[in-house]
Amino acid sequence: MRHLLSTKDLSREAAIEILDIAEDMADVQQREVKKLPTLRGKTVVNLFFEDSTRTRISFEAAAKRLSADVINFSAKGSSVSKGESLKDTAQTLAAIGADGVVIRHGASGAPAVLAASGWIDAGIINAGDGTHEHPTQALLDAFTIRRRLHPGASRGRGLDGVTVTIVGDILHSRVARSNVWLLSTLGASVHLVAPPTLVPVHTTAWPATIGYDLDAAIDAAPDVVMMLRIQAERMNAAFFPNSREYSRTWGLDDDRFRRLAPSSIVMHPGPMNRGLEISSAAADSAQSTVLEQVANGVSVRMAALYVLLSGEREVAR
Amino acid sequence: MRHLLSTKDLSREAAIEILDIAEDMADVQQREVKKLPTLRGKTVVNLFFEDSTRTRISFEAAAKRLSADVINFSAKGSSVSKGESLKDTAQTLAAIGADGVVIRHGASGAPAVLAASGWIDAGIINAGDGTHEHPTQALLDAFTIRRRLHPGASRGRGLDGVTVTIVGDILHSRVARSNVWLLSTLGASVHLVAPPTLVPVHTTAWPATIGYDLDAAIDAAPDVVMMLRIQAERMNAAFFPNSREYSRTWGLDDDRFRRLAPSSIVMHPGPMNRGLEISSAAADSAQSTVLEQVANGVSVRMAALYVLLSGEREVAR
Amino acid sequence: MRHLLSTKDLSREAAIEILDIAEDMADVQQREVKKLPTLRGKTVVNLFFEDSTRTRISFEAAAKRLSADVINFSAKGSSVSKGESLKDTAQTLAAIGADGVVIRHGASGAPAVLAASGWIDAGIINAGDGTHEHPTQALLDAFTIRRRLHPGASRGRGLDGVTVTIVGDILHSRVARSNVWLLSTLGASVHLVAPPTLVPVHTTAWPATIGYDLDAAIDAAPDVVMMLRIQAERMNAAFFPNSREYSRTWGLDDDRFRRLAPSSIVMHPGPMNRGLEISSAAADSAQSTVLEQVANGVSVRMAALYVLLSGEREVAR
Repeated sequence: MRHLLSTKDLSREAAIEILDIAEDMADVQQREVKKLPTLRGKTVVNLFFEDSTRTRISFEAAAKRLSADVINFSAKGSSVSKGESLKDTAQTLAAIGADGVVIRHGASGAPAVLAASGWIDAGIINAGDGTHEHPTQALLDAFTIRRRLHPGASRGRGLDGVTVTIVGDILHSRVARSNVWLLSTLGASVHLVAPPTLVPVHTTAWPATIGYDLDAAIDAAPDVVMMLRIQAERMNAAFFPNSREYSRTWGLDDDRFRRLAPSSIVMHPGPMNRGLEISSAAADSAQSTVLEQVANGVSVRMAALYVLLSGEREVAR
Repeated sequence: MRHLLSTKDLSREAAIEILDIAEDMADVQQREVKKLPTLRGKTVVNLFFEDSTRTRISFEAAAKRLSADVINFSAKGSSVSKGESLKDTAQTLAAIGADGVVIRHGASGAPAVLAASGWIDAGIINAGDGTHEHPTQALLDAFTIRRRLHPGASRGRGLDGVTVTIVGDILHSRVARSNVWLLSTLGASVHLVAPPTLVPVHTTAWPATIGYDLDAAIDAAPDVVMMLRIQAERMNAAFFPNSREYSRTWGLDDDRFRRLAPSSIVMHPGPMNRGLEISSAAADSAQSTVLEQVANGVSVRMAALYVLLSGEREVAR
Repeated sequence: MRHLLSTKDLSREAAIEILDIAEDMADVQQREVKKLPTLRGKTVVNLFFEDSTRTRISFEAAAKRLSADVINFSAKGSSVSKGESLKDTAQTLAAIGADGVVIRHGASGAPAVLAASGWIDAGIINAGDGTHEHPTQALLDAFTIRRRLHPGASRGRGLDGVTVTIVGDILHSRVARSNVWLLSTLGASVHLVAPPTLVPVHTTAWPATIGYDLDAAIDAAPDVVMMLRIQAERMNAAFFPNSREYSRTWGLDDDRFRRLAPSSIVMHPGPMNRGLEISSAAADSAQSTVLEQVANGVSVRMAALYVLLSGEREVAR
């Protein structure tokens, strides 16, 4: 694999390979010295056009535990913000010898442009582009579901037959998009629940069903309920007068949480708006995987960096 | 030791142990390769809710010289500043596998909350919380005094019989607070001198005497005079019309400096307001330990990180 | 060599030594593991009083590939911006054990002040000071020219007989200043072309000729044309009503580029204003060395750090 740009073009085999390598990386995280020499001498650049401390430190920890050198490049205040083109930035990173570029960008498709451009030979990882995709988030979600359902015996498996309900602002969510593609590729059935104004137009092409009734979706007893983060300005665009009203209609509140099966999993990509899209009781319950998701994020990102930047790549060049 | 939150709860034995380990670390700093492999594979996060480049780079240098991976997390511009709770931030750091968290926070008690919370298993070091404490500053001050008084023979010793006068804005100074507890625990006699409006109310419980006459305090010939940094807005709150007036009453100016015994030590936690609370002649004199304090800061922070994060901790878990 | 402050005081022998070591470093960059253990245990501080992400990451990559610990110190938002003196900052860096300080500063001469001060024993590298000098930029330019003219056989050589024309805002350009001194020391003939208002007054002392006709300079068929970056506010100060007018008179547009000999080299320190001082056709041509310059920047900075900070320095102390 050269780049990790989206989950839409990821085959089942490639996805399972990354998840299995992530299992190995998770084992490394349990050791006394949780570090591998694999990427020594490689340089990974975190190229962040949008602030996201959580995602940046997850990739930074992952790269450092593989012994890579990490350079953080926040586009704010740099010549990039003074109008330098993505092309010139990319060529600069190529010239200083970046082996991998983790890019977060406000424009959908920017990582794909970078990968297809020929401006830089590095492996490109999409760390979130506009409303498009966030593939490592979907991979860590899939990894988390697989581990919960098959503790100690998840290697090699997909998610066949698993039912996943994703709730919230589907329209603007790159997390939802990446999960729809990946989870269905792995065999899961995906159901989307959202306010009508926050559903994309072209979802007929998506491998997912759509509904507008959260209570019905909860009572259908899905294996997994994934709550998305709602942003205040989006809540208003969905004609909700205030957060209490939004929460009443679209939040996983205590009542809805209690109606879930004890075996069902509650997920959230973080950071959570407690009391808005998810109640604290749900977020902090044993069914919640919120913290596992963050921890698994490091393992999955180590796996992605390994697949893109380790020796096999060198041979391919 | 699990955490380093304050000096108030530090026993004499524990304090001397840290100071003695810091002596070993100071020796390492004299070597050609001033680095130890002790914390290889450990991750230290500098979690700074307030800017403090000086303190951050001191901890960063200390952690790197112990071969730890360091991740800087400035809360500005992160989801933290968008209202994420300390709980969610702490759990995120736990999930990415932080072994140590160096926290600076504007709210007194935030590091203790973090340590007691159960949200994170990492060793917590308080790098300054509100007007509460700054324990590594007090430890480096004690280390500096001990070395000056017993050059080449300071190991194992306390500060019995040493007289220390701390001057300035005691009310808002976490440096003063941490020093009062630590220095008295180590056997020193601490005298505080401050404008009446800049003295805390409950100092009767403190192991220190209080006075309001700097000249008398100087003429009492203390072994150590520690000048605190005054901030412009505090100076005004103390009813001083301008810095010249403040300096005349509460500054270690050239005249007062000359009246000190040649063997007395002049300290300042930095950054100094030269000409305000301390004259340049005093700051740059042979009696001044200002630069030693900074250098010793790295050794003391290496010692603290070592005590909290090295193998012994693993056994204790 | 103790410091690298300017190219004016660099001897031909010293310059060629750095360029030759940079050749070795360029070879290292071609390896699978592009890293040397040379500066393990050394601490390099990037002390940037002005933002320059490109220059910072070039030095950061260079230092990390020599296994140094790197600490980034942006003066913005630090106590430095609150009025701390350069002296106190320098002494702090000395005290935390900085072996090398890479300094960018808005004031011409700040790095020289630092080096001459005695405040800090570290090796100082000037990474751009006001309108004064930017020596590593000139070294990477010289390195780039030498490699282009003598592919595979550049070691040991100067630039004797090479003709270099530098075009643009000479008055404010530290890149131009550093190149004038270095290239002439290495034997090149330097010709400067600039709007009359953007030429320094005292250029009679410079080892360079000056002209005001870009077309004539182009038709003189120089071996190298180096275009400088123009800043909008400077363009106005030169009485140009808009960028089209500036480009027509002082830009390397497509027409002028076509008139150059096929063997001539087109250089730019970056970031480029495409369509202003240089056309995209010129910038992206085979004659352009813009990307080689960036790549060579890492090799040259590794060489500079090596010369200043490796073992030989220790012996000299």
